[in-house]
Amino acid sequence: MKLSSKNLETRQDTIYDAIVVGGGMGGLSAAIYLARYNLKCLVVEKGKGRSFWMQDLRNYVGFDPDTPGRNIIQHATQQAISWGADVLRGFVEEVTDEGETFAVHIKVGKSDTTGVTFRSKYVIAASGVIDVLPELNNMKNVFDYAGYTLHVCMICDGFDMWDQKAVLLVKTEAQINAAFVLNWFTPYISVLTNGLQVSDAMKQKLAEHGYPLYEQAIAEFLGKNHQLSGVRLADGTIVKATTGLVNMGSIYHNKYLKSIAGLEYDGENLVTNNMCQTSHPRIFALGDLKQGLNQVSIAVADGTLAATQIWRNIRRESAPRKWQENITEASKDSQAKDVELKT
Amino acid sequence: MKLSSKNLETRQDTIYDAIVVGGGMGGLSAAIYLARYNLKCLVVEKGKGRSFWMQDLRNYVGFDPDTPGRNIIQHATQQAISWGADVLRGFVEEVTDEGETFAVHIKVGKSDTTGVTFRSKYVIAASGVIDVLPELNNMKNVFDYAGYTLHVCMICDGFDMWDQKAVLLVKTEAQINAAFVLNWFTPYISVLTNGLQVSDAMKQKLAEHGYPLYEQAIAEFLGKNHQLSGVRLADGTIVKATTGLVNMGSIYHNKYLKSIAGLEYDGENLVTNNMCQTSHPRIFALGDLKQGLNQVSIAVADGTLAATQIWRNIRRESAPRKWQENITEASKDSQAKDVELKT
Repeated sequence: MKLSSKNLETRQDTIYDAIVVGGGMGGLSAAIYLARYNLKCLVVEKGKGRSFWMQDLRNYVGFDPDTPGRNIIQHATQQAISWGADVLRGFVEEVTDEGETFAVHIKVGKSDTTGVTFRSKYVIAASGVIDVLPELNNMKNVFDYAGYTLHVCMICDGFDMWDQKAVLLVKTEAQINAAFVLNWFTPYISVLTNGLQVSDAMKQKLAEHGYPLYEQAIAEFLGKNHQLSGVRLADGTIVKATTGLVNMGSIYHNKYLKSIAGLEYDGENLVTNNMCQTSHPRIFALGDLKQGLNQVSIAVADGTLAATQIWRNIRRESAPRKWQENITEASKDSQAKDVELKT
Repeated sequence: MKLSSKNLETRQDTIYDAIVVGGGMGGLSAAIYLARYNLKCLVVEKGKGRSFWMQDLRNYVGFDPDTPGRNIIQHATQQAISWGADVLRGFVEEVTDEGETFAVHIKVGKSDTTGVTFRSKYVIAASGVIDVLPELNNMKNVFDYAGYTLHVCMICDGFDMWDQKAVLLVKTEAQINAAFVLNWFTPYISVLTNGLQVSDAMKQKLAEHGYPLYEQAIAEFLGKNHQLSGVRLADGTIVKATTGLVNMGSIYHNKYLKSIAGLEYDGENLVTNNMCQTSHPRIFALGDLKQGLNQVSIAVADGTLAATQIWRNIRRESAPRKWQENITEASKDSQAKDVELKT
């Protein structure tokens, strides 16, 4: 059911099988599976994650390309609730390991915030990343294009940039290397560093490919109706472009795991096994938070894997359900022996 | 575009980047990604695969639970074609490795069949499995219940069997062990072996759990409007059940790979790495054909992974696209040197 600050106490004594941090594509997939394994789960969603901002979804089987991410999230949230999952709008501040359970500390509400703690056997980290965007004084100008013709994911949207004049926006020199992958989709690439000075070696490499480099600060994105036409730099230069790729890194929503000792990371990505289990056996990680591709399809499959492994673990620790009325005296005897052997 | 026996010659000189064998959830996901990487791909679909038979889809993010598999397949086929993939209704008889390319031998048409051979750099095996069903004289009686209240996938449908009287249908003794997982969902399990005699050890184990065992042949499924009410055995015994699980194994649609030397299998499942690449570097395998869970979400993600790895391989072997008009004399010199060094 849907939880809010008004009905939190109805679940205060619940020990969830799993608390899912993040109600995006991966977290909701996990919740749907967990609920259909008849496991008790709570999804904590802070709102406005990466898939919420997706204006379209061009490569997820079965959906029209212009389906906004938020529509699928709303649908899947209802799906999860209808199978029995709990969903709470809130922000997970910290997860502490209590041995058998985790205590998940959640801030609920916006202005008049309440702190609440829920407990679970497993935690699924599905809180994803958010893309770093250029910081301009007028952020509305950035949001007018980001997610429309100014893309953040080359795999998702490279195709739509085909042979167009494109700007590549970076924050570090290493991020410029995306130009040498983006050129699969278009060779007409102008690199904008927004104030960062780059090495002579990189300048040389860009020149060899014919990709102009602009190290000036960005003043403004130009265009209308979300359709980019260019970028104006601080010195007045206008770089023409009808599309762009922002490759400025990601902010990882994983701070709530900071007190968990010994979690293995590869850079900022959590290292997981083939069932999305982290180096902590009761913490799983999905989608963008872990190594691998940042794609909706991957996050959704990750939810399937994590939920299934948690079900297996819990099932294997549970006593098998027997059909009591059919058990004969003879088999009861052998059962008793079995129990004796096990205890 | 849609290919048929009428327009095959339009593509006879094409060397596809990838031929995808199977147009189910995984194959279509691969095709959508391949097309959006601007790679040339052909999907060969024989029709009526496992997802075509799915009457509903209860745990794939974003869809109503009563969405039939065939609706999603039809939608995704159009999706793939709209991005530039070719789709052909046909049956892949054999794939032969010619070194740089594969020759894919396809039978097109039903009565008046044509043989056609297409070539590709990569092959994606996405032809899945089909569930073995009980073989009764009247197969319509089986199809009246299979996929409705007589399920073939415990992960998909176990939840809908909750605490109901269930029959478990098996073909081998080992398959009976599914009872000891199915009992998570319901303990009211009757095991039907349809003529197979089982060992005393297994009889004892079932008796300990209180699960009746029926070794007689199955005569008929009982019920109406796809709702099972029981099973009548050859000796007239009626086993009451409102649901059932068929766990009789799968037929793997992978015969066309038989002439490929050295493909590594685990049982009948192809062994793949984390990008769905088999032990043959130019053959990928998705979904039910490979190790792991047989779930739509997994097949869809596998399509993403295989297509992305094929794109990476092809991209890395391709000359980088340069923005010629921007290349200065100085950088042209250094390019020439580069080329010299590489050749």
